[in-house]
Amino acid sequence: MEFIRNCWYVIAWDHEIPHGGLFTRTVLGQPIVLLRTAAGEVIALEDRCPHRGAPLSKGRREGDAVRCGYHGIMIDAASGQCIEVPGMARAPDRLCVRRYPVAVQRHWVFVWMGDDAKADKALLPDNFSSAHPDYHYLPGYLHYDTSVDLICDNLLDFTHLSYVHEKTLGGSTAIALARPQIEPVVNGMPGLRVTRHVADVPPPPYYRRMRSFPGNVNRWFIYDFVLPGTLLMHSGGRPVEDAPGDESRTVRLHSCQSVTPETATTTHYFFQQALQGESDPQIVQGIFDSLITAFNEDRDMITAQARNLEREPGRALAPLHFDAALMQFRKLWAQALAAERNDSIPS
Amino acid sequence: MEFIRNCWYVIAWDHEIPHGGLFTRTVLGQPIVLLRTAAGEVIALEDRCPHRGAPLSKGRREGDAVRCGYHGIMIDAASGQCIEVPGMARAPDRLCVRRYPVAVQRHWVFVWMGDDAKADKALLPDNFSSAHPDYHYLPGYLHYDTSVDLICDNLLDFTHLSYVHEKTLGGSTAIALARPQIEPVVNGMPGLRVTRHVADVPPPPYYRRMRSFPGNVNRWFIYDFVLPGTLLMHSGGRPVEDAPGDESRTVRLHSCQSVTPETATTTHYFFQQALQGESDPQIVQGIFDSLITAFNEDRDMITAQARNLEREPGRALAPLHFDAALMQFRKLWAQALAAERNDSIPS
Amino acid sequence: MEFIRNCWYVIAWDHEIPHGGLFTRTVLGQPIVLLRTAAGEVIALEDRCPHRGAPLSKGRREGDAVRCGYHGIMIDAASGQCIEVPGMARAPDRLCVRRYPVAVQRHWVFVWMGDDAKADKALLPDNFSSAHPDYHYLPGYLHYDTSVDLICDNLLDFTHLSYVHEKTLGGSTAIALARPQIEPVVNGMPGLRVTRHVADVPPPPYYRRMRSFPGNVNRWFIYDFVLPGTLLMHSGGRPVEDAPGDESRTVRLHSCQSVTPETATTTHYFFQQALQGESDPQIVQGIFDSLITAFNEDRDMITAQARNLEREPGRALAPLHFDAALMQFRKLWAQALAAERNDSIPS
Repeated sequence: MEFIRNCWYVIAWDHEIPHGGLFTRTVLGQPIVLLRTAAGEVIALEDRCPHRGAPLSKGRREGDAVRCGYHGIMIDAASGQCIEVPGMARAPDRLCVRRYPVAVQRHWVFVWMGDDAKADKALLPDNFSSAHPDYHYLPGYLHYDTSVDLICDNLLDFTHLSYVHEKTLGGSTAIALARPQIEPVVNGMPGLRVTRHVADVPPPPYYRRMRSFPGNVNRWFIYDFVLPGTLLMHSGGRPVEDAPGDESRTVRLHSCQSVTPETATTTHYFFQQALQGESDPQIVQGIFDSLITAFNEDRDMITAQARNLEREPGRALAPLHFDAALMQFRKLWAQALAAERNDSIPS
Repeated sequence: MEFIRNCWYVIAWDHEIPHGGLFTRTVLGQPIVLLRTAAGEVIALEDRCPHRGAPLSKGRREGDAVRCGYHGIMIDAASGQCIEVPGMARAPDRLCVRRYPVAVQRHWVFVWMGDDAKADKALLPDNFSSAHPDYHYLPGYLHYDTSVDLICDNLLDFTHLSYVHEKTLGGSTAIALARPQIEPVVNGMPGLRVTRHVADVPPPPYYRRMRSFPGNVNRWFIYDFVLPGTLLMHSGGRPVEDAPGDESRTVRLHSCQSVTPETATTTHYFFQQALQGESDPQIVQGIFDSLITAFNEDRDMITAQARNLEREPGRALAPLHFDAALMQFRKLWAQALAAERNDSIPS
Repeated sequence: MEFIRNCWYVIAWDHEIPHGGLFTRTVLGQPIVLLRTAAGEVIALEDRCPHRGAPLSKGRREGDAVRCGYHGIMIDAASGQCIEVPGMARAPDRLCVRRYPVAVQRHWVFVWMGDDAKADKALLPDNFSSAHPDYHYLPGYLHYDTSVDLICDNLLDFTHLSYVHEKTLGGSTAIALARPQIEPVVNGMPGLRVTRHVADVPPPPYYRRMRSFPGNVNRWFIYDFVLPGTLLMHSGGRPVEDAPGDESRTVRLHSCQSVTPETATTTHYFFQQALQGESDPQIVQGIFDSLITAFNEDRDMITAQARNLEREPGRALAPLHFDAALMQFRKLWAQALAAERNDSIPS
């Protein structure tokens, strides 16, 4: 599996990066050390000392520089350049590490793994609810022992809410039966907008963590799923019986989720689900707990699926109408990869 | 290592297959989901949804059908055919899973991994003591992290009783010194009959769980070991001093053991040892405990042997007279494989 | 990575080899069983029964022979020859296991993995402090999940004392700043003598386990590091303020350390640090505890380095002045390998 490089990948929640310390995470197989300068800038460097390959993250901060914990080589964070070799009057110029472009947007820290010249913040997804006074959430992270594509597939077909999440996010087979509308979209990067309305169903189990409902609700899920693997979703439910214009019992959520390949076979999953106009910490925690339960349901299923697929790598699957969005997304992925390859051919 | 497919493999003890639920076990690298219909029939299906490869065993029963827990595809157990796709008026015919022939014979559930047309119950081994009013046992299962062939080797040469099982099933080097008689046999499938008599030896340690013995015993082991890897054994011991015709202190056991490849490098081991005319639960439990101890002794030794052999795969072993039965059995195995290959060539 | 075979490898501390029992350890990928005869001689045999490959170390001693625990084959320790097969009048001559030359020198047991004819005890390193009335130590062992070369690198450049061992063996960046003298040496096998003097530095944290110091000390590290991977070091410290001729507060240590490849990717590490003229068990234990802490610091760093290097096997490192000794040692290694290859070409 080949990965797109000219795009922003979520590498961390901003609270994960310590003040004065070092944090390491691997993206596309490349270990990266993250730090926050005295001025507050987040910097991402290759986590490998150029001298003998030790991880810089096992060293220590000296101001805005990193000193390798093995032989004391010191790297300037701003430039990636070695600025001190113990016992040498002047560090050799060739000693340096790659610095990756970083963008911090509303609590997500993104890293750019491709051509630096193309690192454009206009390509960031609109994760507005991760920092908006009307929305409240808790930040989530899960690690997957599967490749990223199976998780994208999962997020592109909400049929599974009726089965995988029957007792958490789902609660009705009507979700599976509703046919979504799928259309192209650009939200930073190209992707798909998936719109699914489900009328007159029981409120899903996790809604009851917020309030009680008199009867059925009309639900909606409207999300952009964009390259390389980010979901931005408005969803909600409104009691069927409520009078037109009465929004007092309407649930409105916005969710930001992003998957980042750690390696070809393991994946980072960053997520939140924000509740509009509801800041009660117990309810926010309840929504988060439901999400964790549900996303573990996904992970169990996807991991079991991955193990089955690994047994017979070449064997065909059987696409059904559910798979329209995910087949289209894989085409977008292939197009982006092809474009990258063309870009890198010198003219 | 290549496996015979046109034969019955033990896949489970019948008590392992729940009423109303699903049970999964892998045989010859193929995950298989087992279920029991309302009418009581045991059915084996490939444990892989044809849609996107998720294990059906993570789904749920709906009557005698299985609904996949990922996207709700429903598979009829009797036919393996998909009978419902959520949101489709009619399920596509091409959606189906393989159903494997099953035989249930006296608490062992067998599955047929080869050509359905050849699945003949006359090929089942005679495991009579697994359901016989005069015999009492407890059912055993162990998992091996070794290939099946090394376990067959072990069961085909009881020399090891004197050394591996000195303090459990053995108790005397006379077992190793006695030369067994080896002859061809058919017990369902072709195999070998191995007969070993050992005169005037102390009763083995585990006999003392049944009763006390005044002095030495004459022991015997008469077993069929048949393809693909099933042992059916009469064994026993009779006090040397007992008068002709006095069977009051004679021990008579019948054991059924079967090894099934899970993968090329891991194996399922199903076993029981039944005591004739003895139903005292404490004694039956004592025999079972001795067997578990002894079979763990085997597993420790065989696993250590396997790790040694893996270091130098091509290196020769040194066959001795002990190895007569196991060399003959490997010939039978090779013949069966060759016959299968010939059968599958279209004329 | 290719290993030198015509040399002595430390395989055990002599106290590890039981009286009357069997001990197993793997060297250069070859499992070896060690035993001590009734006369006290230590013998090393290939830990693999010639019959069917079971480890002899799972068998038992019968006098100075080993009986395999699987089928009772008995091997004479002195010759490696099979001397009994149960049920055979005479064991076949072809049944034998390789016996490796062994040398026991001052609590280290060495094994020779190459051409027996070349096994010369004059090639043993001078580990005198492992059995000397003026020196006291405790014996240490660690297991590494890395190849041996990265550990040799570590031992050949003490720059890392200032960073990896800042709070244990180091205590000052002056160690990193001091340039060592490097010269060829023969200590049994060829190697390098590395001499480093560090003037007027605080006593390292672990010195304080021995006594208190009024102020700074002058330190020295003088060690031979010889093929295949043995360090023999005199080190010490003397208070700067002490009058000439006053040695009452001088610390004098001698350390013997040796790394032995278990496999291409795992390593045994044997070590001691002996204190001259100090036998107080609490102080000896304190030195040992400091060493364990420090050698775990090394192992953490080297293991992290190894994982980084494994990601991109071909990628270049950037040698610096620190690396003079380790580059020279790798040359000696390559020369020894080349000489071995020439020796084995029949003329």
